[in-house]
Amino acid sequence: MIQERIAALRARMAEEKVDAYLVPTDDFHASEYVGDYFKCRKYITGFTGSAGTAVIMQDMAGLWTDGRYFIQAAAQLDGSGVTLFKIGEPQVPTVHEFLEQKLDAGMCLGYDGRTVSSEEAAQLSSLLDKKGASIRYDLDLIGDIWKDRPPLSCEPVMELDVKWTGETRASKIGRIRRSVEEKGADLFVLTLLDDIAWLLNIRGGDIHCCPVVLSYLVMSADEILLFANEQAFPDEVKLALKADGVRICPYNDVYRYVSEIPAGRKVLLCREKVNSRLTASIPEGVTVLNQKNPTLLAKAVKNPTEVENERIAHIKDGVALTKFIYWLKTNVGKLPMTELSVEEKLFAFRQEQEHFMGNSFDPIISYGAHAAMNHYSATPETDIPIEAKGLLLADTGGHYLEGTTDTTRTIAMGPLTDEQKLYFTAVLRGTLRLADAKFRYGTTGLNLDYLARSPLWELGKDFNHGTGHGVGYFLNVHEGPNSFNWKTTSTRKADTVFEEGMITSDEPGYYVEDGYGIRHENMIVCVKDKKTEFGQFMRFEHLTMVPFDLDAIVPEQMSEPERKLLNRYHAQVYEKIAPHLNEEEAAWLKTATREI
Amino acid sequence: MIQERIAALRARMAEEKVDAYLVPTDDFHASEYVGDYFKCRKYITGFTGSAGTAVIMQDMAGLWTDGRYFIQAAAQLDGSGVTLFKIGEPQVPTVHEFLEQKLDAGMCLGYDGRTVSSEEAAQLSSLLDKKGASIRYDLDLIGDIWKDRPPLSCEPVMELDVKWTGETRASKIGRIRRSVEEKGADLFVLTLLDDIAWLLNIRGGDIHCCPVVLSYLVMSADEILLFANEQAFPDEVKLALKADGVRICPYNDVYRYVSEIPAGRKVLLCREKVNSRLTASIPEGVTVLNQKNPTLLAKAVKNPTEVENERIAHIKDGVALTKFIYWLKTNVGKLPMTELSVEEKLFAFRQEQEHFMGNSFDPIISYGAHAAMNHYSATPETDIPIEAKGLLLADTGGHYLEGTTDTTRTIAMGPLTDEQKLYFTAVLRGTLRLADAKFRYGTTGLNLDYLARSPLWELGKDFNHGTGHGVGYFLNVHEGPNSFNWKTTSTRKADTVFEEGMITSDEPGYYVEDGYGIRHENMIVCVKDKKTEFGQFMRFEHLTMVPFDLDAIVPEQMSEPERKLLNRYHAQVYEKIAPHLNEEEAAWLKTATREI
Repeated sequence: MIQERIAALRARMAEEKVDAYLVPTDDFHASEYVGDYFKCRKYITGFTGSAGTAVIMQDMAGLWTDGRYFIQAAAQLDGSGVTLFKIGEPQVPTVHEFLEQKLDAGMCLGYDGRTVSSEEAAQLSSLLDKKGASIRYDLDLIGDIWKDRPPLSCEPVMELDVKWTGETRASKIGRIRRSVEEKGADLFVLTLLDDIAWLLNIRGGDIHCCPVVLSYLVMSADEILLFANEQAFPDEVKLALKADGVRICPYNDVYRYVSEIPAGRKVLLCREKVNSRLTASIPEGVTVLNQKNPTLLAKAVKNPTEVENERIAHIKDGVALTKFIYWLKTNVGKLPMTELSVEEKLFAFRQEQEHFMGNSFDPIISYGAHAAMNHYSATPETDIPIEAKGLLLADTGGHYLEGTTDTTRTIAMGPLTDEQKLYFTAVLRGTLRLADAKFRYGTTGLNLDYLARSPLWELGKDFNHGTGHGVGYFLNVHEGPNSFNWKTTSTRKADTVFEEGMITSDEPGYYVEDGYGIRHENMIVCVKDKKTEFGQFMRFEHLTMVPFDLDAIVPEQMSEPERKLLNRYHAQVYEKIAPHLNEEEAAWLKTATREI
Repeated sequence: MIQERIAALRARMAEEKVDAYLVPTDDFHASEYVGDYFKCRKYITGFTGSAGTAVIMQDMAGLWTDGRYFIQAAAQLDGSGVTLFKIGEPQVPTVHEFLEQKLDAGMCLGYDGRTVSSEEAAQLSSLLDKKGASIRYDLDLIGDIWKDRPPLSCEPVMELDVKWTGETRASKIGRIRRSVEEKGADLFVLTLLDDIAWLLNIRGGDIHCCPVVLSYLVMSADEILLFANEQAFPDEVKLALKADGVRICPYNDVYRYVSEIPAGRKVLLCREKVNSRLTASIPEGVTVLNQKNPTLLAKAVKNPTEVENERIAHIKDGVALTKFIYWLKTNVGKLPMTELSVEEKLFAFRQEQEHFMGNSFDPIISYGAHAAMNHYSATPETDIPIEAKGLLLADTGGHYLEGTTDTTRTIAMGPLTDEQKLYFTAVLRGTLRLADAKFRYGTTGLNLDYLARSPLWELGKDFNHGTGHGVGYFLNVHEGPNSFNWKTTSTRKADTVFEEGMITSDEPGYYVEDGYGIRHENMIVCVKDKKTEFGQFMRFEHLTMVPFDLDAIVPEQMSEPERKLLNRYHAQVYEKIAPHLNEEEAAWLKTATREI
């Protein structure tokens, strides 16, 4: 089937005189996850992973992906005629290096410019200019051959009341407009779906687990144009938007609109995030101010209402997770359970909570060796029974009107090895120490990451992922710019200064291939501590309220201050969660949060 | 006197049609400290601080300096007619902003291009181009009016044997030449005095406390030209240099030499460090590769011989300092002592050590409130008696053939307040924790700095200087690129990865204006720890071997792991130092290093 699709694509490429066709994973909005309409790379290669880029030429078809997906991609590409390029392996060219090698003078690279950022397009362009090759970015050749392509999502849009958002749409628009004016811009082009949802206090369902509305936004001095499918908007939402100066226009009209911006105008946008067909549509006489979106920091810094709501959301989520852990612990070995069946059980516990709006991401319930695979998510094919031994890792989260949660607990289902307990304890020491940081204003995730990693580093161990990411408010579970890491990576720099109200995950881990996986994840909010002659000091508070499994902890491996941190946290958990449990569960929680 | 000098300068400026004349602090080599010949800024303003820039116009004279020097500069400029510009204060323009404001079309800025880096000159040029103003960089107007200007230093040059350096000159030249060739350059222009001394295994005395040789160096594929005063070189050094392909040319000829580089050649140099008259002398057809000097990292990573020698140097220096502390403690209140007199005493203890070559910087012996001033160095005018109470801060170091030391100890001269003990202990916890870091290869000073600051941050306190700097081997006491800090500052980025063999100071502090000052400084060397499936892990070892004053420590404020760190360090100090003390001193050291 893949071979037929590639053959059809090659025929279209020949008609268009395109020698190489580039198929990224992206939608038109640089979203982390994409809707079904946008899954062109999956359509043309059969590879279902969340990251990868395909290149098709007449005599080759290739897929580039990273280490997380080498095994899966090799299996899914088998027999398709698509070659796997393992990113980061020795002698493997990057996509850009490959295109530079293959495309000679007179040849043409094609892609759908809506799926390639302006920044990447500029890199490709400078690369191929040197070779004398050309680019066509106005093609959607996969769309041309994809007969049963799913339609663009059009899930109903809801308005999020100010009691949840803490700030009216008008106030947010006012703030951002002032910021745009201060930068000297006449227009602000925003294409990030979560930023648009935040700014307009609307939520939708156009991406799985991400309550966003498929749209582009252009802000001028006197109005906002929202390019979206009007059918998704109930009348009352339309009226409310209109009252705040927001006009809905057809989704695809944004390209025509920007092409008609009068010369001399200044447009603020972020080239790293805006797609290249959109920027290419802007006439030459218009000045583009390439800067970070003013919505980025405004969205990341949660206001007091949002923070207080998040505390409520985390109590609800903590009740669901505590009930879940109690249920697991008391029923394992008695009732049959598998990764998928307990996933359903947990979902049911969350559904019991008022204002639960769905999962904030696909749950990771991974038992035994499955937990060593960072991106494992159980499917009917991989599902395995959970027995009364070893570790179960549950990385899950929910959307509530009161905010988004993202929690990982690793649970002892029965007897553990000493090694498992050693690393369980080491990882937990890291989680607790990072959350306990007291720091001067100006501190970044680069400065603090050592706290989370050092208990493992002292043992010569580590984990190969970031230590934490920002989290949206009833919005995307991964949100910038705040994060924790010890190194700057291409996708995430941990150089953002922590501001009061930023919410970040704190999630060190430890993984043994074919063995087991451990991760402890709490969401923490940055708050002000004392102010002295040296300036403002800051600290974090735990939002997540779920016990860490004392059955897997070796108290002797913790210093006294570390044990105090755990005891203090557990006392908080008991106080907040116990009132919402039945008698049996509460009695169990009392023991599960006992002092050590 | 200053007014007369300024008047003479203004007359020369009028003759040369220069409207503003810029006088930086720099010598021709971007040295941190400069020789007397180069002290033009001091000559024209009377201000003696180590940092500052003067600008003279017909109707104004200004001096820019930073917060360390506001009080001193105000006093020294009083009555001179020179206006003090306090860098960093609100509404105070920077030098560049000031020049941009004042210099209109047709006006001319003058300076000696040898004292302005290529990078800064480029900034000035782009600034003034916009205004239509011009620049003359071929003037030395201070030199023209300075009748009794001291001559250029010409201290005798010595060769440093391979038993001290661990690597022959030929080997170093070979390594650096290969690196220059790999970068595709034909020539390498090096003007940093410590890099030249390191590369050629020579030492001199052309800057106070810095054993460098005034020189420029150009490396080609087959020879090295060393532009220096030949009279400083004994015959045997000249012969040895010649044998390794090093030819000595007159110091000032470097400008003519680079002006004759044939078109088409590629020259490697670091614009941030090379002076602008030199780069301006390079013909247009020559390509300049602007990169970090390949000597930078090579010099910072000490080889095993250097590291082992440094351990010896630190035992010698530790013996001198331990005798000094014992002498202070037993004689305070009995013998008269002042900051300057004990400075002499310490120097005498150091002089008793074999291979002592002099102070590595002007000693900071500051008693009581003097210690709150970071850059205080006692003079006959400021000298005060030391009494049997309070804290004495001693930040001093020596050069030995076995390496350079830099140690700070804060010593209880008698009763202390509880507050003093609290912060003494907090700062020490920071010193010990940073030195105890275990980290994965790739870690930088930005990642680790929190360890040193957090005991103070938890108390809402801090210190407003970096936590540590690299140290040269019998060379400059401040050396890049390794350092510890929590923020990137304009002069120092703490983003260098720690390599095995890097030697860095670890020196948190705490200062109370008009009260007291505390600093604990050890030099630590980076060594390899275990290697695992996650890669190479690293740690530090203490080089400095001097007791921390238990009289000022509150053991209850330290965690048990912290007390262990101190006890382990003190056991090492006793083991290494006691054998070199007399019986009385050794008995005292036994108590001074007792377990707590």
